[in-house]
Amino acid sequence: MSDSLSPRRAVRIVRVTASGAHDEDDVAAVEEPLEVRLHDRPFAVIMRTPGEDRQLAAGFLLAEGVIAHADDLGAVEHCRHPDHPKVHNVVNVFLLGAAAARLPELLAARRNVLSTSSCGICGRVTIEALQTRATPLEVSGTIARGILQRLPEELRARQPLFDKTGALHAAALFTIQGECVAIAEDVGRHNAVDKVVGQMLLDERLPLNDHVLVVSGRSSYEIVQKAWLAGVGIICAVSAPSSLAIDLAHEAGITLVGFARPAGFNVYSHASRLEL
Amino acid sequence: MSDSLSPRRAVRIVRVTASGAHDEDDVAAVEEPLEVRLHDRPFAVIMRTPGEDRQLAAGFLLAEGVIAHADDLGAVEHCRHPDHPKVHNVVNVFLLGAAAARLPELLAARRNVLSTSSCGICGRVTIEALQTRATPLEVSGTIARGILQRLPEELRARQPLFDKTGALHAAALFTIQGECVAIAEDVGRHNAVDKVVGQMLLDERLPLNDHVLVVSGRSSYEIVQKAWLAGVGIICAVSAPSSLAIDLAHEAGITLVGFARPAGFNVYSHASRLEL
Repeated sequence: MSDSLSPRRAVRIVRVTASGAHDEDDVAAVEEPLEVRLHDRPFAVIMRTPGEDRQLAAGFLLAEGVIAHADDLGAVEHCRHPDHPKVHNVVNVFLLGAAAARLPELLAARRNVLSTSSCGICGRVTIEALQTRATPLEVSGTIARGILQRLPEELRARQPLFDKTGALHAAALFTIQGECVAIAEDVGRHNAVDKVVGQMLLDERLPLNDHVLVVSGRSSYEIVQKAWLAGVGIICAVSAPSSLAIDLAHEAGITLVGFARPAGFNVYSHASRLEL
Repeated sequence: MSDSLSPRRAVRIVRVTASGAHDEDDVAAVEEPLEVRLHDRPFAVIMRTPGEDRQLAAGFLLAEGVIAHADDLGAVEHCRHPDHPKVHNVVNVFLLGAAAARLPELLAARRNVLSTSSCGICGRVTIEALQTRATPLEVSGTIARGILQRLPEELRARQPLFDKTGALHAAALFTIQGECVAIAEDVGRHNAVDKVVGQMLLDERLPLNDHVLVVSGRSSYEIVQKAWLAGVGIICAVSAPSSLAIDLAHEAGITLVGFARPAGFNVYSHASRLEL
């Protein structure tokens, strides 16, 4: 019997092609938080695809310097919530030897742990924690399909560093009239988003309801979170979204577009902002 | 005058094509740590491409919930080291109003700050900090060009979730004889690496000198760090490496391969492990 949640989930999308817009079933990669505990105490939360959670926890602790070799590692176990037996988003790790001796110091430096986390941590809890900081966005303008569809190419045409190195993600903000107001390239996808949002923040142009955030890659929970906190109404990604990105976009009132290509795109939430 | 380091850097590579192996000049995207300070005190370190650093800091602080709007933000300035005027890897932020009142609480929760960080923080310091935890790897075996070259396709053939969702990164470990010993898919590239390394750790098969880590995307500092701590001798990435990934691979004694395609690949460090 598997200890893991499924790594994929059925989603309902609007697929837009040359022949029109149609509701369809699709499949999204699951993104859910994994809480890593040390001796039953919260240490870190990792956004991951369920599966090989014990391996993920072990590899993560090695890279973080918590353990140096297998001898530092005792039991590595999924923790089950008595009321939610299907929730497997917590792995508890027992350390041995020198690593165990450092436990108090390690727990003092614990990272990214949601204060609301319990053994029932899940994407639902993650979204609820964010809801305390932001309210759902209202639809204040719509974008023409023709404008939306050319934004990925407009982004691509503004990536001089990618042209030279093949190594950079990009993010840009466009108005719903299709005007580019900010663009950034970075080795980190999240950084590129922070840079364009930060520019608008420094220019005192937030919130960005009537803007589209275009990203060169996939959309994860974190990309949607950043868009929401900046009040961006529409996200247009060249690649696929994760399950948690879709769930969060629904809650946030954000129109989430994925697989944006010259021939068409998929809409995962709030299609009412698009003139299809 | 720009406040930023260059976002790209010349590198020397070995380009391997059907016609042989040749030394060439190439260009890599720069990855360097940016330290974000609050009122002159370390708060976070972000691995980023230099450029729009003030914007990055502002956007990052918004997403982290440190600030809620532009009114919370006072001066956002690069900090210059008196002895290293070209080092611009620190941005100091002054908060206002409610955000400033939360400063002690924010600094208590500061994240990922290298204990050695000074106003001269740079990739060099980052690598030196890691050198206290790991020693350079020795060349203990070589891999045939023909085996290395088919590994990306072998990885791709083992990605069932990507086939269904188009949304997952993958990492795998192969022996230098070309046998796949671990594979994982995840929405997070780093997670996929942690999962395969963690599996080998749990199986007590570390260090992995005579193994190749194959990743579906780019190689960043963090990927090379994870490989080093697991003792992996060779990294083979389908896309480009960052400057810091290259520098770290040199120091770690790791053979770093990028742009691995059926027609050839680039070698960024320690080509002696490859039978060209």
